Amino acid sequence: MRAVCVIGLGLIGGSVLRAAASAGRPAWGSTASEVDATAARADGFEVLSTEQALRRAAAEDALVVVATPLTAVRAVLREVAEHAPEAWLTDVVSVKGPVAAEVRRTLPSARYAGGHPMAGLSASGWSAGFAELFAGAAWAVTVEEDTKVAAWREAAHLALDCGAQVVPTSAAAHDSAVARISHLPHVFAAVLAAVGSDGGPLALSLAAGSFRDGTRVAGSDPDLVRAMTEGNRDALLDAVDDALGRLGAARGSLASTGSLKSTVDAGCAARADLEELADSPRTSSTVPLDAAGLARLRELGEQGGRVVALSADAASVESPEL
Amino acid sequence: MRAVCVIGLGLIGGSVLRAAASAGRPAWGSTASEVDATAARADGFEVLSTEQALRRAAAEDALVVVATPLTAVRAVLREVAEHAPEAWLTDVVSVKGPVAAEVRRTLPSARYAGGHPMAGLSASGWSAGFAELFAGAAWAVTVEEDTKVAAWREAAHLALDCGAQVVPTSAAAHDSAVARISHLPHVFAAVLAAVGSDGGPLALSLAAGSFRDGTRVAGSDPDLVRAMTEGNRDALLDAVDDALGRLGAARGSLASTGSLKSTVDAGCAARADLEELADSPRTSSTVPLDAAGLARLRELGEQGGRVVALSADAASVESPEL
Repeated sequence: MRAVCVIGLGLIGGSVLRAAASAGRPAWGSTASEVDATAARADGFEVLSTEQALRRAAAEDALVVVATPLTAVRAVLREVAEHAPEAWLTDVVSVKGPVAAEVRRTLPSARYAGGHPMAGLSASGWSAGFAELFAGAAWAVTVEEDTKVAAWREAAHLALDCGAQVVPTSAAAHDSAVARISHLPHVFAAVLAAVGSDGGPLALSLAAGSFRDGTRVAGSDPDLVRAMTEGNRDALLDAVDDALGRLGAARGSLASTGSLKSTVDAGCAARADLEELADSPRTSSTVPLDAAGLARLRELGEQGGRVVALSADAASVESPEL
Repeated sequence: MRAVCVIGLGLIGGSVLRAAASAGRPAWGSTASEVDATAARADGFEVLSTEQALRRAAAEDALVVVATPLTAVRAVLREVAEHAPEAWLTDVVSVKGPVAAEVRRTLPSARYAGGHPMAGLSASGWSAGFAELFAGAAWAVTVEEDTKVAAWREAAHLALDCGAQVVPTSAAAHDSAVARISHLPHVFAAVLAAVGSDGGPLALSLAAGSFRDGTRVAGSDPDLVRAMTEGNRDALLDAVDDALGRLGAARGSLASTGSLKSTVDAGCAARADLEELADSPRTSSTVPLDAAGLARLRELGEQGGRVVALSADAASVESPEL
């Protein structure tokens, strides 16, 4: 089993380290946070300096997992280039295009495929993590024209070992999608919380499930939310513009005719799409792990398919019957 | 114990009927829905025609609870005027100004105070309800210049018997508040669901907690959501305008400087306001139930206070120490 070296031991990186160890892999990490380092060591994990961690990764031909906020990725990749330039490489950062661009710049011959587990909590740091965080979750693994099959397989294998299901996707398609279903929800939660709080104690005293649910992620660490949303600026601007258009149309319709029919019906149908995708029966297929197979996997990912198992030379995919 | 006559046996009305009966009160209802009537009878409750239900209310000096969508309130009040014009009267409709206006028009001498329990589910109908739906929830009971103390006490007493805590408020302040913390969240959920679904199966396949939470109430019955939101048009337009302003500012800042600091920080602080109000230590006070006391209760409600018990001539209030 390939060893795993996790750089960054916050909620996500810390949970990856735990899950990799639980899967029986040799695993160690490094973190710039003394608090996280102390907590991880207290839980029995090996925490090294980043240089030590990467040197060991090079010596053991490990998979290096970059699990820092986007703002720290460039500095980490430079250390990887210095200490483990041949390492297997993936990341769990919430935006994929900017990370891929950094990898191309800093480690042009890296054996890299990007990753993004779709699991989170409003809490952060090592102490908030646990090995089962990714159980049943989607975990995007990027496929580009130049992605090496072996590198993709390593990243996907880690995701499966962590209990997740792999969604093959291009970085661009991923970033556009998560702008809609992760980054815009954070912006909406922040705006909704502020408009509610502007109503004073009476409004907050009357607030119930719809407000609590709609503002939950506004309680997340602001630095992490900013790193995530600001790091996906172009795609998020598109999503915000779509939202402004729809919200403006709702406003116009409510003001002029008193009706929110279009808005409410579209929202109800869209929410049903989400349930339908989740509840749909699945078709299984097997895709060979070669260059053409990777392209096919990306197509299946765009249709809602997920890789649920890997053999030495093939991927098992479950696709919704939509 | 005063008897309770519930007109409308959907999620809220059905739960009120169950809760009132559980509290030991004589209780019966009526509904225009054959499905709800059949289900309520199967559960052992007495379901009459609206005329029969109201005649019995008049005979037993019961509290009539209007629990229909806003769009049906006028017709119900006309039946109340015909069959039980002297009855104690409250309602559980999600908007209070329009109901109060209808009551003034149709039953100018009614012994009325409006109510609104802040509890809901995305499911609807009798079968979705249960007696404990209101346990610990806020339940607004309106105080206006002309509210009769005895009528207010009856409405508040029902809320307490249902396990809720009473938030005294004017109809106008209530409608402004719920536009922010209930109706805008429904509009936001609908818009967010639609923008997400526009991302296709890939986006929905990657959707996790933030999108699920942010769109949950988009799965509610569209007719009920429309009745609720469209019935509070003016206050909701103000809230939507605030939201458009904040979302537009976020867009502008992200596009021009790449920063979402103001948006994210404001959202995080606002969410903390919600937690702080919920977790704050409470100060207890006793307010006499007379005209001056009602005005004092309304002030306390605007500061986040809740009535937690009633005696014959006083209310026990718990107020947050903010």
